[in-house]
Amino acid sequence: MDFPKSIRIHEEGPREGIQIESRQFSVTEKAALIEALADTGLKQIDCVSFVNPKRVPNMADADQVARAIRKKPGVRYTGLWLNQKGLERALALPLDVVGSIRVTASETFSIRNTGRDIAQTFDEQRLWMETYRKHDVGLEWGYVMTAFGCNYEGEVPVARVLEMIARIVDLAAEFEQPLTGVYLADTVGFATPLDIERRIGAVRERWPELKIGLHLHDTRGTGMPNVYAALRMGVDQFDSSVAGLGGCPFAEHKGAAGNVCTEDIVFMCEEMGIATGVDLEALIDCARRAETMFGHVLPGKVMHAGSLARFREAA
Amino acid sequence: MDFPKSIRIHEEGPREGIQIESRQFSVTEKAALIEALADTGLKQIDCVSFVNPKRVPNMADADQVARAIRKKPGVRYTGLWLNQKGLERALALPLDVVGSIRVTASETFSIRNTGRDIAQTFDEQRLWMETYRKHDVGLEWGYVMTAFGCNYEGEVPVARVLEMIARIVDLAAEFEQPLTGVYLADTVGFATPLDIERRIGAVRERWPELKIGLHLHDTRGTGMPNVYAALRMGVDQFDSSVAGLGGCPFAEHKGAAGNVCTEDIVFMCEEMGIATGVDLEALIDCARRAETMFGHVLPGKVMHAGSLARFREAA
Repeated sequence: MDFPKSIRIHEEGPREGIQIESRQFSVTEKAALIEALADTGLKQIDCVSFVNPKRVPNMADADQVARAIRKKPGVRYTGLWLNQKGLERALALPLDVVGSIRVTASETFSIRNTGRDIAQTFDEQRLWMETYRKHDVGLEWGYVMTAFGCNYEGEVPVARVLEMIARIVDLAAEFEQPLTGVYLADTVGFATPLDIERRIGAVRERWPELKIGLHLHDTRGTGMPNVYAALRMGVDQFDSSVAGLGGCPFAEHKGAAGNVCTEDIVFMCEEMGIATGVDLEALIDCARRAETMFGHVLPGKVMHAGSLARFREAA
Repeated sequence: MDFPKSIRIHEEGPREGIQIESRQFSVTEKAALIEALADTGLKQIDCVSFVNPKRVPNMADADQVARAIRKKPGVRYTGLWLNQKGLERALALPLDVVGSIRVTASETFSIRNTGRDIAQTFDEQRLWMETYRKHDVGLEWGYVMTAFGCNYEGEVPVARVLEMIARIVDLAAEFEQPLTGVYLADTVGFATPLDIERRIGAVRERWPELKIGLHLHDTRGTGMPNVYAALRMGVDQFDSSVAGLGGCPFAEHKGAAGNVCTEDIVFMCEEMGIATGVDLEALIDCARRAETMFGHVLPGKVMHAGSLARFREAA
């Protein structure tokens, strides 16, 4: 066992949660949720995505939201782009543009999700790298989507994941940009904790210098055990969503499932002595606020049960 | 890592789920759910509890339910009693009475939950042991409730848990009954996977011959990581509830939380090569049936997302 002393969370709730919701939220509501999250101690918050407003009506006002947020020093407010046009929108806004390379290990998923196959995706990434250079944006993470499995292709071989990482590493080297690490994304909820151990092990064996991050969805109940398996291996970088936002298994989004839940991760880590830098009680308040805002039950657990603080005080 | 080759599940949904629900179900509905569960390959199903019908109206017809179930050979249909009177009711019914010793590590919780302190509880257990002997009922498991923490007393020291197990072991020896093992019950959702590792480690060190079982509630999102941590230590005996029944965090039972979810455990285990003997697709059907019966969303994950079988077939 090799727990990290602390973890870093990239909060994705405002983007993942809002983009999938059919109910339309105001710019004020969106900005207020982001501001409340920044007040909990979270240091990086994904605020908006730059996507087709016809497909994702709730992101039509992404620019206004980015401008409306009252920023807190020390917090990074990020956005997600899927193409060069989105990247250019992000660069024109008061957002923290963090350089990334984003590829999908499943050819079919890549085409269905972005309209580009893997080769075309790498061509697009080259454009992004040029844009980062032009705007003096540092590269940080490479992302491998569907790194565990894919609804179209089933199991994604480990060798394919390693091949994608090798190409990411090469692209970063070509542009003489240091790469912080790679995110393995369980985009559609295939991963078990055993897969986490095996795939992280395989990546580490080949690139011991790369950090590893995880983007997990709790589609089939393995989200939290996957986090735990990664913590045991010293992984200290996680994407997650307040209240488990990001495609609710209930009500209108039946079948989809949210990201692993930020406050549940914070609870588990803090209870095990792993620092998160986040005020759990404030984050629980945020999750409850999100539930009120969304108007339906959200999948987070500790937000409904409360932390253990009151029981310890009583005892 | 020391995964078991297979696990045994004690399905608790019909008892845990129905006893907490305010909506009244018919004997036919209850028996039908139990029969459907037995058809999935589950080998032990907790069907009813013998409790005060004024406190738990849905268990007023426990005797009729026990008689109504069409039994399947090779399946054990159990019930839960909390006192001698309940045990005698169970013995008079067509149920599988499995000898157990049940104590609570927290004195306060013991008094609030059963009206008896720990000393009185052991006196009561002695009566049960005499009754088992009289009726030729074999002893199997000792249960330590609140083995991780208590809402009244906060943290429960490991030493207290070991003391309770020592007294259980002594009581079994006094009656010359072999004890299969001990269940550690996280009755109110305090356990983290690190606690699971530490407490199981402490029990194993002192009693390497005892098997260990876990009764977990997913109150704060640590249910599934707790199962995973236990699997890594070779634990192969779990209580769980179909659809995560047992005090829903949603709707009418806000704040309470269900047991770890049977089909989510079955999914995770089977995906990792650990046999469960359960037909996952049939169990998912059962979970969905329970959701229809209960009339509100239940917390299970894989029941909403479906298994991976259809994606593998498509690929």
